[in-house]
Amino acid sequence: MRLIMVGGVAAGTKAASRARRVDPEAEITVYQEEPEPSISECGLPYFLSGTVAARENLVARTPDDFAEKGIEVLIRHRVERIDAENKRLSVRNLATGERFEDRYDRLVIATGARAILPPIPGVDLDGVFRLRFLTDADRIRAYVQKHSPKKAAVIGGGYIGLEVAENLHRLGMEVSLIEGANRVALAYGLEVAERVGAHLEEKGVRVYTGAKVEEFTGDRRVEGVRFGSDELETDLVVAGVGVEPSVELAREAGAEIGQTGAIRVDRRMETSLPDVWAAGDCVQTVNLASGEPAWVPLGDTANQMGRVAGTNAALGPDAEGALEFPGVLGTGIFKVFDIGVGKTGLSEREAEGAGFEVVSASIEAASKASYYPGAGRVFIKLICDSETGRLLGAEAAGDGADKLIDVCATAIWGRLSCPDLVNIDLAYAPPYGPALSPIIQAASVLSGKFG
Amino acid sequence: MRLIMVGGVAAGTKAASRARRVDPEAEITVYQEEPEPSISECGLPYFLSGTVAARENLVARTPDDFAEKGIEVLIRHRVERIDAENKRLSVRNLATGERFEDRYDRLVIATGARAILPPIPGVDLDGVFRLRFLTDADRIRAYVQKHSPKKAAVIGGGYIGLEVAENLHRLGMEVSLIEGANRVALAYGLEVAERVGAHLEEKGVRVYTGAKVEEFTGDRRVEGVRFGSDELETDLVVAGVGVEPSVELAREAGAEIGQTGAIRVDRRMETSLPDVWAAGDCVQTVNLASGEPAWVPLGDTANQMGRVAGTNAALGPDAEGALEFPGVLGTGIFKVFDIGVGKTGLSEREAEGAGFEVVSASIEAASKASYYPGAGRVFIKLICDSETGRLLGAEAAGDGADKLIDVCATAIWGRLSCPDLVNIDLAYAPPYGPALSPIIQAASVLSGKFG
Repeated sequence: MRLIMVGGVAAGTKAASRARRVDPEAEITVYQEEPEPSISECGLPYFLSGTVAARENLVARTPDDFAEKGIEVLIRHRVERIDAENKRLSVRNLATGERFEDRYDRLVIATGARAILPPIPGVDLDGVFRLRFLTDADRIRAYVQKHSPKKAAVIGGGYIGLEVAENLHRLGMEVSLIEGANRVALAYGLEVAERVGAHLEEKGVRVYTGAKVEEFTGDRRVEGVRFGSDELETDLVVAGVGVEPSVELAREAGAEIGQTGAIRVDRRMETSLPDVWAAGDCVQTVNLASGEPAWVPLGDTANQMGRVAGTNAALGPDAEGALEFPGVLGTGIFKVFDIGVGKTGLSEREAEGAGFEVVSASIEAASKASYYPGAGRVFIKLICDSETGRLLGAEAAGDGADKLIDVCATAIWGRLSCPDLVNIDLAYAPPYGPALSPIIQAASVLSGKFG
Repeated sequence: MRLIMVGGVAAGTKAASRARRVDPEAEITVYQEEPEPSISECGLPYFLSGTVAARENLVARTPDDFAEKGIEVLIRHRVERIDAENKRLSVRNLATGERFEDRYDRLVIATGARAILPPIPGVDLDGVFRLRFLTDADRIRAYVQKHSPKKAAVIGGGYIGLEVAENLHRLGMEVSLIEGANRVALAYGLEVAERVGAHLEEKGVRVYTGAKVEEFTGDRRVEGVRFGSDELETDLVVAGVGVEPSVELAREAGAEIGQTGAIRVDRRMETSLPDVWAAGDCVQTVNLASGEPAWVPLGDTANQMGRVAGTNAALGPDAEGALEFPGVLGTGIFKVFDIGVGKTGLSEREAEGAGFEVVSASIEAASKASYYPGAGRVFIKLICDSETGRLLGAEAAGDGADKLIDVCATAIWGRLSCPDLVNIDLAYAPPYGPALSPIIQAASVLSGKFG
């Protein structure tokens, strides 16, 4: 049985590893365009600043590591066409330019997502980058080494932009963050967005909101960025304005694409094509808080999807013991300087959009017993369905936000409601939190808002 | 309406505050034996070492603070008898010795728990202490200041003993920890207990297990502790061998006592006596993981119970809007030097005792992305019901154990099972965890163990 993975980052390599375990006999090949497989893309902002010192630390496994497990990983190979009817692939060796045909019995599409580089004049100037692959980070690092930029402009106030801003600032650059919307951290409610903006300014990052970039100026190398009536001098631009699913290959092969623009799969990660599964940043899943289709391109989710797709592809269609991937909550976290910023489930706006009537409560609390040294502050907002009291979403910002978000994600997964969160038995000791978790405190405030 | 709280630490003061909010007209009095109300008892070990610098930081609210909210707090007053039939109390003013009668319409018993000081010869020597109240900590601190002890023996390897050992070590003392059982952290499985023991030794605390103390030696002041054939020199002893619920007052008043030895209450925290509620370390509740009666004396739980008891006492029996306290999971955490050690739900042994057939899996994982600076290690064990896959318990030790335990507690509360934990959508970014949470990794291992 010949099993092929198209794409070799989180989902593709995880699928391959799982398939190998399920079927020790299968012939497994992973085609990967980039020069390395199994890259920890979430670590890239930290590689820019040298916080992650060694490049090889970002490559979890090499082709040789996979070869030892009997998995063939072909790097710098691009699958250019899938012939789903005849189960054949056209592949191009990017190193030699050579094209060849391959065949499969079963296929996993894990083509991922790519960073959007908007068609702004000057976007092709030297010194204008996006950050998606390890090779992008290599290019930025080489540019920084060569030109020692003093001023950097980061375009986009999402989590990539925020992480990049922090890490360029750590390199000693004067960093401006430019966001088209009226606030950074747009996926969050106003309270969190304002906290993030204020924290950036406090740390010395200049934040421009409502600032639509019109042009990157400069001759050969970028020298400025123009938005509205402003023009900033800059020696380096990193654009983090979003990602989109890479679905062309699947679409041309005839796979159904969902309303989010990503590949439609069922709970077993099967596409609409026979013997073709898909996983990772290229697929659409379900937001379990709203029940609505969702596209949430994140490394951990890709890994979990890869586990399901790889297992099921190795077992074959309709096999007993097939795994299911139920969906996501859109849980995410990022660090920006001294604070963690995270969310899970639905924001207030998303919940209303999904038809819920919403009750919410926000508090700011100590992150440890207030008398314990090093206690910080953390903001948390809980969003509940007013009818059932069920927790729909949570946002947190500050010290220990990651813990609060993980607890809330678990609560949403378990369909807990506000009274559960008032009485829930969480762990307390002074070094780890206040006597009542900020979640319990917020739920207690919230409980007063129900009729 | 005259509402009286017997006891003014976590449960009693919380009950009073809630009652005040529910009924602005009620006459509310709190009788508290110790010289302060509202003491953060969990902070006491850290006060010994000066980690918590100021004594007043451990007193969350003073009698004056309560007076401002219209709550009378009478410190150094002991309620000596409850006449439940006539709704009368005998009270003694410990400062003056004076006895007087009081009457109530409704009563909340929050008499707490007390530290056990075993009847070992020499237990009354100077320099032998227990640590339960702030006044105990005062006495230990005064003794340390006066005698500058160089060697300390801590009796008991539970969380109080472990916290005290760390804090005396921090004062520069040579600390020996003496535990009667064959390991420290007896509430935990062997893997965690061994990690804790090894960590203590690594930090320079000598650990003696299977060591039943037979005598404290010395003339007027303690000079040694004898167990088996060993005798250690010591200048200071702190015994943390356990606590027991203070139920005499309730028992003599005719309140039913549960099989755990604590006061029996229903979900509304009502005792078997009319118009008498109880909350905190003196009451019995239910372990929601096993459904069995449980007595878990912890400050956060006491606070949550106090909220329910205070609300319901203010509303009156059978009132609409009464709150319910569903039970606990026995969730707890403590810090011992560099690691957090926590548990929730049932240990493997407890689960088997409760009639479950158990499957468990343990892993040790990085606590952040392994390439991110400062990544530590954390051990986690998940314990599931083999029939349903439901999570019954979890233990963790290491960096970030508090987060993992809170997530597992929430999962048990939500009755999640192993497949949920494999796919659950937790927050990932390199500074906050590995790409797949140690919980997901452990659940993945566990899932392989189910038929």
